[in-house]
Amino acid sequence: MYTYRHLFDFTQEIFLAIGCPPKDAKLAAEVLLEADLRGVDSHGVARLSGYVRLWEAGRINPTPNMRIVHETPSTATVDGDGGLGLVIAPKAMDIAIEKAEKVGTGWVSVRNSNHFGIAGYHAMEALSSDMIGMAMTNASPLVAPTHSIDRMLGTNPIAVAVPTKKQPPFVADFATASAANGKLEILQRKEKKAPVGWIQTAEGDDTDNANELKDGGALLPLGSDLVHGSHKGYALAAIVDIFSAVLSGANYGPWVPPFVAFLNPPADPVGKGIGHFLGAMRIDAFRPADEFKENMDRWIETFRAAKTKKGEKAVLIPGDPEREMTDIRLKEGIPLLQPVAEDLEKLGKKFGIKF
Amino acid sequence: MYTYRHLFDFTQEIFLAIGCPPKDAKLAAEVLLEADLRGVDSHGVARLSGYVRLWEAGRINPTPNMRIVHETPSTATVDGDGGLGLVIAPKAMDIAIEKAEKVGTGWVSVRNSNHFGIAGYHAMEALSSDMIGMAMTNASPLVAPTHSIDRMLGTNPIAVAVPTKKQPPFVADFATASAANGKLEILQRKEKKAPVGWIQTAEGDDTDNANELKDGGALLPLGSDLVHGSHKGYALAAIVDIFSAVLSGANYGPWVPPFVAFLNPPADPVGKGIGHFLGAMRIDAFRPADEFKENMDRWIETFRAAKTKKGEKAVLIPGDPEREMTDIRLKEGIPLLQPVAEDLEKLGKKFGIKF
Repeated sequence: MYTYRHLFDFTQEIFLAIGCPPKDAKLAAEVLLEADLRGVDSHGVARLSGYVRLWEAGRINPTPNMRIVHETPSTATVDGDGGLGLVIAPKAMDIAIEKAEKVGTGWVSVRNSNHFGIAGYHAMEALSSDMIGMAMTNASPLVAPTHSIDRMLGTNPIAVAVPTKKQPPFVADFATASAANGKLEILQRKEKKAPVGWIQTAEGDDTDNANELKDGGALLPLGSDLVHGSHKGYALAAIVDIFSAVLSGANYGPWVPPFVAFLNPPADPVGKGIGHFLGAMRIDAFRPADEFKENMDRWIETFRAAKTKKGEKAVLIPGDPEREMTDIRLKEGIPLLQPVAEDLEKLGKKFGIKF
Repeated sequence: MYTYRHLFDFTQEIFLAIGCPPKDAKLAAEVLLEADLRGVDSHGVARLSGYVRLWEAGRINPTPNMRIVHETPSTATVDGDGGLGLVIAPKAMDIAIEKAEKVGTGWVSVRNSNHFGIAGYHAMEALSSDMIGMAMTNASPLVAPTHSIDRMLGTNPIAVAVPTKKQPPFVADFATASAANGKLEILQRKEKKAPVGWIQTAEGDDTDNANELKDGGALLPLGSDLVHGSHKGYALAAIVDIFSAVLSGANYGPWVPPFVAFLNPPADPVGKGIGHFLGAMRIDAFRPADEFKENMDRWIETFRAAKTKKGEKAVLIPGDPEREMTDIRLKEGIPLLQPVAEDLEKLGKKFGIKF
């Protein structure tokens, strides 16, 4: 078990060591660690050495000159100058929030960025301003569209955070694939089988082999197969790709550069880096905020009180499991798998930073 | 087979007969018939007598005084005054488009409305202005959240339409349940079984009985079960409900009034009527429209060229099947099931209008 403080300080030191300005190193550590707090272990410190390898490969700019390249009162297109998504995305979200303050809503499409951690962090940034926050990003292709055997789309997550009064906020944050790649990685490490409906083989057949992606297989869109609506999951992932990358001028579809540094980005890019899309809607641009938040409380209380299936304890509200996990981990610490801890120790040694 | 013209004229006459002003009757017929053209038979003329019965029950106002009750430069909240959603939604979308023209994007939440036909119609309204269009609506509760046996959410559809240059537009339009209720109705009429993963019994067990809803069963969210991501479908339906109704002050969750006139709306409403959410984003608020549209063409061409599974003809782009159906039906006519044709004949007789 590691305390949040310990992991935060270490992560911040590493980002400082690769040349991030102090403010950015702190922000990046905060965004990255939010994944560990919320139980999304695949997106937290386990990825820290991955970010560093991208920097070593010259694919992350620690001192980006982020700039607005196009804007209207309610929109902006941002060029992240190859910076860490962990830094670029929160700053882009700040722009969305500022615009929402002035004209009701703000929408920012980002190009030339990198992975931004968990989408939920960015969406939740809007909550303290009594706004609904939205965040999405594209990612390197792992998902095959319905009817296809080619990996064309990332697991392209969508997050939406909604403010409340007494209840904790509604925070949905989910990959548009039937299962996020992180869940698969856990099965791979434990050498367990995957549920049918998560992955297909290189030929497009059903499989329960969690390692099938290594043999040319693909993840399946939310819905798993056509009969159960995989064309809807495919459409959702496509919408995320279009909003994040075709609107901003980032790479889209099969051109999105891989997160792992040992794979080169496609030689014929159609844009710059990866893309995000961030949005903020001021509640009182639609209705007095208090009225809305009272109704959100009632919405949540009503859904929480819905009858459960036999054997199920409760109907959950999006965000419940992650919030409970955060409470536990802030108190009891954050567990790391042995290989992750060893990886961080090695990473620390490289920069003379004690893990 | 019936020609589009024939069904359009008849539908328009009916809306005139219930007291809609000529412009509204024409608009309502156009929106309703778009469903028949696109092959969404459950949402088209098959529902015409349902709208009339709602009017007979005093639950549709044919001459609504629709008004903006709250606004900012990029947002508006609209009260539909109990009008036909088929008329209120396109007018609300006009407001979204006007706002987008001025400040880049426009977002309109609507309360006190009724069913608005297919979401895709409203999203597509933005295309001719070189805007991305979005439309969603809540609907009467048929879907059980993950872990629950209560029907808490409608099939709450989401539509997104994206302009292109030479390619036909990208038009996604889908229910956030694993299968739309219309698909189930078709199986019920044909006395066929439903795929497991569409419906659960009153106890929350799997079933292939297409009539299970009559016995207290529920539709399942996109993803079908927790392992395959039903919590994501539940979150999507919830987001549609919140944007459409909690933002606008319409009824949400289990309070959404039923479409069928023989069921009374809940006696303790939490808002007015049902809710919609409409959005328009000007492409050139982010990037020169031509540049975007060329990239959208490339996106579409790339996905269309993806390798298919053995036995599948092509990878489809959202909107492809509905566009092909429209071409066929404009040429060959629109088929109606015998009971639907008889229902329309009876409806016509009531008003002295020949079907």
